[in-house]
Amino acid sequence: MSEFDDAVAVTPVTEGLWAGRLDDGWSIGGAVNGGLLMALAGSALGRHLAGHGGNASGHDAPVALSAYFLSASRAGAVEVRTEVARVGRELSTGQVSLAQSPAGTPVERVRALASFGDLRTWEHPVLRSPEPPELPPPDECVPASAAPPDFVAAVPLLARLDLRLEPESAAWATGQPSQRGRIRGWIRFADGRPADPISLLFFLDALPPVAFDLGILGWAPTLEFTGHVRAEPAAGWLRVELSTRTVTGGLLEEDAMIWDSTGAMVAQSRQLAGIRLPS
Amino acid sequence: MSEFDDAVAVTPVTEGLWAGRLDDGWSIGGAVNGGLLMALAGSALGRHLAGHGGNASGHDAPVALSAYFLSASRAGAVEVRTEVARVGRELSTGQVSLAQSPAGTPVERVRALASFGDLRTWEHPVLRSPEPPELPPPDECVPASAAPPDFVAAVPLLARLDLRLEPESAAWATGQPSQRGRIRGWIRFADGRPADPISLLFFLDALPPVAFDLGILGWAPTLEFTGHVRAEPAAGWLRVELSTRTVTGGLLEEDAMIWDSTGAMVAQSRQLAGIRLPS
Repeated sequence: MSEFDDAVAVTPVTEGLWAGRLDDGWSIGGAVNGGLLMALAGSALGRHLAGHGGNASGHDAPVALSAYFLSASRAGAVEVRTEVARVGRELSTGQVSLAQSPAGTPVERVRALASFGDLRTWEHPVLRSPEPPELPPPDECVPASAAPPDFVAAVPLLARLDLRLEPESAAWATGQPSQRGRIRGWIRFADGRPADPISLLFFLDALPPVAFDLGILGWAPTLEFTGHVRAEPAAGWLRVELSTRTVTGGLLEEDAMIWDSTGAMVAQSRQLAGIRLPS
Repeated sequence: MSEFDDAVAVTPVTEGLWAGRLDDGWSIGGAVNGGLLMALAGSALGRHLAGHGGNASGHDAPVALSAYFLSASRAGAVEVRTEVARVGRELSTGQVSLAQSPAGTPVERVRALASFGDLRTWEHPVLRSPEPPELPPPDECVPASAAPPDFVAAVPLLARLDLRLEPESAAWATGQPSQRGRIRGWIRFADGRPADPISLLFFLDALPPVAFDLGILGWAPTLEFTGHVRAEPAAGWLRVELSTRTVTGGLLEEDAMIWDSTGAMVAQSRQLAGIRLPS
């Protein structure tokens, strides 16, 4: 098992109820990464849908997932509830909720809707697709190990990743944010696990927040996140680009796009995130 | 009452259950427009949340809404179920489901999650925001009345709108799609009702599908739609721009952005839609 597979594993309890455990190794400043939560939620829902047989059994990839973040998730036990909304010919759709009970009473962390399908039916033909960004090769980019030790210590998530930011996209770390509203880089799992559709939900939300590139540091909590997986990723490095165009009143949208090693655009997302503006 | 207010009105039945009626006047080829369904769903959920008092009573605008379309809605009675997930300080989040019972048994049409808030707390300051597109004035654009009579007859929705497409964005109608993957125009309600946050959910999905601009005509069913409302729209014309970058295997993403008459970007969305590729 890889670190990621361990982290998103859930055990069936009863129909539609699963038990999982959030590991501090996937956290940022004490809160578990939202991408990991979406991958865990998607993984449980995918298993529930597949268990319905018929069409649903081939619907093994999350084609679209929309998650609303209700409270910050902490390391520890997590209860996952899944529900089927509709099993169709091309897509199966359901709902999933994550809850934790830090004080005995369940507190909902995330609620999501998602549609699963067979990506092989959706990948071809490619009529139009965004080209991948030109980036310096990974060895000429900035690894997470270049960050200050106290930063690395506060973000255990970094040790799960092999992340290489293009130099301009890492300039915020030395107080020189590029102000383009863009962060780009290469990413893969540190332990060598290959990317697959479920892990794309994680990679869409695994880079530093795009707000950092505008010099807006600090926590940028995701309020809503919707990801689309458009193709099965090939083995090798992924390229990720984050961008934002609209920063108003403590909210911004963060758009993410991922290309695989063949240059195919394999996933994209938009999230609405909160930011603390300098007062 | 305006046509739109009539169309999205729901009557409380019991806690979390509402009765509505879908009017054929908002349909396209027999199916009720998805934007109208989202506005109706959002409207009922907003009332449910507001009824919870406290913070929620000021949370009157849909800041984010994500809808999964499960089956096509038809004119007739619709049952709306709403549920509170969390009432927070800045946002209240809940869930809503639309169902119809054409053969006695309820069939779910749409399931959505949404967060409501007070837009006045989110509108300012504007640090960065996309500029509105330069369009010819409405009088130099193409009105829906220029469409062939049989097209207008199949799309009763057009009579609810005052829609003026820039000439390039209407060229698909005469067999010359611009192939830019972009449709832009002016829009407002035909009966003069001013735009408000709930109606922005409708306007985000009220233009012809962006696939038409690629010469891909026919039904482009929305699978998933997420809209963000970023500001209260000023009175007057709205400008809307649709675009797509990724058209693969019978799926495309359609991004929409709306600016009000002051040039402020007030709402944006992305949807994943199905298309029938020419074989």
